[in-house]
Amino acid sequence: MDYQAILESIYEDIQPYLSQGKVATYIPALANADTNSFAMSLNLLDGRSFHVGQTQKLFSIQSISKVFTFTLALQRYDKELEKFVGHEPSGNPFNSLVQLEYERGIARNPFINAGAITITDLLTSANKEVFEEILSFIRTISHDESITYDPNIAQSEAKSAYRNYALINMMKSFETIKNPIEMVMDTYFKQCSIMMNTEQLSKSMLFLANHGIDPISNKSYVDISRAKRIQALMLTCGHYDASGDFAFRVGLPGKSGVGGGIVATMPNHFSVCVYSPALNANGNSLAGTKALELLTTKTGLSIF
Amino acid sequence: MDYQAILESIYEDIQPYLSQGKVATYIPALANADTNSFAMSLNLLDGRSFHVGQTQKLFSIQSISKVFTFTLALQRYDKELEKFVGHEPSGNPFNSLVQLEYERGIARNPFINAGAITITDLLTSANKEVFEEILSFIRTISHDESITYDPNIAQSEAKSAYRNYALINMMKSFETIKNPIEMVMDTYFKQCSIMMNTEQLSKSMLFLANHGIDPISNKSYVDISRAKRIQALMLTCGHYDASGDFAFRVGLPGKSGVGGGIVATMPNHFSVCVYSPALNANGNSLAGTKALELLTTKTGLSIF
Amino acid sequence: MDYQAILESIYEDIQPYLSQGKVATYIPALANADTNSFAMSLNLLDGRSFHVGQTQKLFSIQSISKVFTFTLALQRYDKELEKFVGHEPSGNPFNSLVQLEYERGIARNPFINAGAITITDLLTSANKEVFEEILSFIRTISHDESITYDPNIAQSEAKSAYRNYALINMMKSFETIKNPIEMVMDTYFKQCSIMMNTEQLSKSMLFLANHGIDPISNKSYVDISRAKRIQALMLTCGHYDASGDFAFRVGLPGKSGVGGGIVATMPNHFSVCVYSPALNANGNSLAGTKALELLTTKTGLSIF
Amino acid sequence: MDYQAILESIYEDIQPYLSQGKVATYIPALANADTNSFAMSLNLLDGRSFHVGQTQKLFSIQSISKVFTFTLALQRYDKELEKFVGHEPSGNPFNSLVQLEYERGIARNPFINAGAITITDLLTSANKEVFEEILSFIRTISHDESITYDPNIAQSEAKSAYRNYALINMMKSFETIKNPIEMVMDTYFKQCSIMMNTEQLSKSMLFLANHGIDPISNKSYVDISRAKRIQALMLTCGHYDASGDFAFRVGLPGKSGVGGGIVATMPNHFSVCVYSPALNANGNSLAGTKALELLTTKTGLSIF
Repeated sequence: MDYQAILESIYEDIQPYLSQGKVATYIPALANADTNSFAMSLNLLDGRSFHVGQTQKLFSIQSISKVFTFTLALQRYDKELEKFVGHEPSGNPFNSLVQLEYERGIARNPFINAGAITITDLLTSANKEVFEEILSFIRTISHDESITYDPNIAQSEAKSAYRNYALINMMKSFETIKNPIEMVMDTYFKQCSIMMNTEQLSKSMLFLANHGIDPISNKSYVDISRAKRIQALMLTCGHYDASGDFAFRVGLPGKSGVGGGIVATMPNHFSVCVYSPALNANGNSLAGTKALELLTTKTGLSIF
Repeated sequence: MDYQAILESIYEDIQPYLSQGKVATYIPALANADTNSFAMSLNLLDGRSFHVGQTQKLFSIQSISKVFTFTLALQRYDKELEKFVGHEPSGNPFNSLVQLEYERGIARNPFINAGAITITDLLTSANKEVFEEILSFIRTISHDESITYDPNIAQSEAKSAYRNYALINMMKSFETIKNPIEMVMDTYFKQCSIMMNTEQLSKSMLFLANHGIDPISNKSYVDISRAKRIQALMLTCGHYDASGDFAFRVGLPGKSGVGGGIVATMPNHFSVCVYSPALNANGNSLAGTKALELLTTKTGLSIF
Repeated sequence: MDYQAILESIYEDIQPYLSQGKVATYIPALANADTNSFAMSLNLLDGRSFHVGQTQKLFSIQSISKVFTFTLALQRYDKELEKFVGHEPSGNPFNSLVQLEYERGIARNPFINAGAITITDLLTSANKEVFEEILSFIRTISHDESITYDPNIAQSEAKSAYRNYALINMMKSFETIKNPIEMVMDTYFKQCSIMMNTEQLSKSMLFLANHGIDPISNKSYVDISRAKRIQALMLTCGHYDASGDFAFRVGLPGKSGVGGGIVATMPNHFSVCVYSPALNANGNSLAGTKALELLTTKTGLSIF
Repeated sequence: MDYQAILESIYEDIQPYLSQGKVATYIPALANADTNSFAMSLNLLDGRSFHVGQTQKLFSIQSISKVFTFTLALQRYDKELEKFVGHEPSGNPFNSLVQLEYERGIARNPFINAGAITITDLLTSANKEVFEEILSFIRTISHDESITYDPNIAQSEAKSAYRNYALINMMKSFETIKNPIEMVMDTYFKQCSIMMNTEQLSKSMLFLANHGIDPISNKSYVDISRAKRIQALMLTCGHYDASGDFAFRVGLPGKSGVGGGIVATMPNHFSVCVYSPALNANGNSLAGTKALELLTTKTGLSIF
């Protein structure tokens, strides 16, 4: 398969879609993003990689960080994790708080904000300096020690995070959050503000596409069962209220971030990352989603 | 791979689980099921099939029928179907009616009862005698003209279906159901009461595992894109409020019925059906779910 | 106090409001109502009564019937009634079904539809011919044997009652309704279709304004404690999702019907009924509500 | 009427009820309250007052403060207030956050926490030092300059107020709160921690029972229409999820606090305050509610 040619044809095909989405406006760094930007990187298990567009351009990974923190939590807690966070899709946004209330502070899955905050809290219980650990893990799996976070974005996030503060206070009232609110939120805002490009992100997902083992370093990060679990969760819960839609159209486990990035895996075949900052109505990169739909159509590869 | 040996070892392994579930009690035919029953059938694309247990034993397919009616509706309506039924997971059971009300009578997906009833209504709009069409389709894809429904079970279903009547009346109040309530429900109860065994059901799913084309007859029932969509939906929505759990543990697109059956597919590899009438807390066959988890562990095959 | 003069000045003041509401359209009998119609009747405890407008015009009493059936149920079941129906306001309409589900089929109060249907079911358990009893009670307290129901309206109601059928089916699924659905709904539709005018309705409420004793016949229908309870419920729950608003603006216990009627009481002073078929956004007579607000302003009498 | 004798007989009658409730435990000051404490004060419009029990004992007024802040807000904003806070009962506790989300940050009424916090925010917009104004108003209507708040209790409240912080953050996300969270919450915690006894609280409500005019000083605090509105709200929303029950049993406008106090009014007749720290399941003083039920039974006076 000529992946480079496929990526280039996708690059052409998505041009009309770039202008159809809307960038997130709640913080300046996102509001000012260039909606013409597009990048796509794909890594094969054999080490080859393919790229189109601005694949060096750094953007905040936002919710994609939830895959990394969930992986770390699964490493540490394994099945016990189920006591603290569920793994069912959450239905529509309207229910987020009522579900949290109904389920007495137990978030439905680690990829909605309430669940991701819980995961950060769990990691914090084991290591007060957990942000260093998160960053270090990401650098290792991306093979790039230069990766860091943007403190200005972290600060912007904190200022407009009323809904996240509502969630953590509610969970605190149910005693499902153990650490001080500001300690947990500080890490949470930093992890959302980690700056990466599509090359780094695509590479960072390769171990998942290979049953938990990084095919470059041959190092195992999670066992085969956990790799399966992480990707099952990406498929069922990775795109907010459009997770079903993504599975339906794209058919790959994926995780999007409001910064415009989406990562995805095709187990046994490849990992991929796409970037385009303008979002669809559900908060996922519009052209990015389209690009991944084209990828599965053009390659004939999807998990279904 | 020695599938027969794998099925036999699963049969042994699940013995202690048979007694852990509880049969559905809302109708006599289910309440009286023998909890020691177990059957498992697996079909490869090359025509070979493997079996353990009481694979000739007929049971009511219940919600597995939703895969068949959704396939028929997708054949007929394709993308237009999205106007009438969503394709997002529905969150917890508690929300079923409130979601339906919030979304003004549009069910979230075709595999919850509200959505399946809508699908039956849509099919009825095109063909008042649609039950014959459903049955005929099932006979064709199962290569078995003897398949029929049990009128006693259909009648039992009707008598205890207050919740389904609540759903259809609510949708009727939003005018999202077009045909008379009794006409739609009559077909719905009949489709739930279709009697099949694991051999027939496993065979009936083979076209999905093969991108829409029955590998035995070489006949195409849906195109590759629709086959992908159906299986994406099975993965994200196929097991009620335990869909995430099934994806997490088993990692195959599947659909369960309260009668104790579960069908699943491993695209490009096999289709499978398992039967065991005692259910777990979420209404899915307990030993059946365990058997499928063992299958993906023992074969090392899952979509992730 | 010159009540006749007050009623006449109200009649003048409400003229501009008559055209501001909208008649209910779900059944022909209501859709065709003349929006210029207005009537108001007031009865003092000493036997005097005052009237303006078309006080002979019959209209369907609709939800006002809930006061009568609740009174009969309270006569029969007293405090035991709390086991079957609550007495708390229900919040907004959106919640009606989810509350019913959350509270496992126990309706929050007897003045929302679910609660009124439960009351009719309870009365039916004691008397299969309960509609005759309801009608007879209304005739007695109205001192008018001519009162009856309109079978055409009852039939129209039945045809468009999908939401009520959703409610009763849901309650049936929780086993909080004991009698056959059609038996209960038949009585329910008939009670809604009872035809009365403002003279009859105002007179029928006089016993409540007088602590349970009809001051004309000196007959006691309920004891003082029950009279208090009925009126407390009218105040907190009598106007659907605008009960607080009615208490806030009018300050009298009242009960409205979608047919355009509103009854109210000023304990120790008077009962009153107003009719005007055009409704406000909450389904209460718009000019009727305004008329009662003017009544409490002009008389200086409200319960607060 | 011999009110003193009635109060004394109530005092005897409620003795067995004192031990049936449970004190609030979320802060030490409440957890350590003496469950044998009981006090009741009643003020007539003519200036006479009657007392039984520990009527000098100070307790934190908690949610009773909502009557005072709502009165101040109504003085300042009048009908415009409806834009910021509703006046409908809120249904059950389960709905509190979902309602707030559904209604986009507009609280249903000023007596649930979300609404009271909004009222404090509105008062803060007009006066950054509004706590002084609140305290001053309470001192004036109570004719007692010694009234102040307990800073230890205010601090305890702040420490356990996760749910209130969840509410204000959610409202902040909808931009319905204008001032900084800590500024609003600081005032809110202080107003809850104001220490009063039943003598002061009963006297403070006298203007409401007299259509807005303090019969002692002859000073008008609100006009007759606003006095009616405040009391209508007390009746429909004054006792959390037991407001309907209180109206049903007691039949007086009232407002309870989790500190064990309840104030109530009988318009044109009296104001009353009762104190007993052990609460019923709904968070209202158990013996206090019983005492007020006995008061309306023994005097034959209720608004219905």
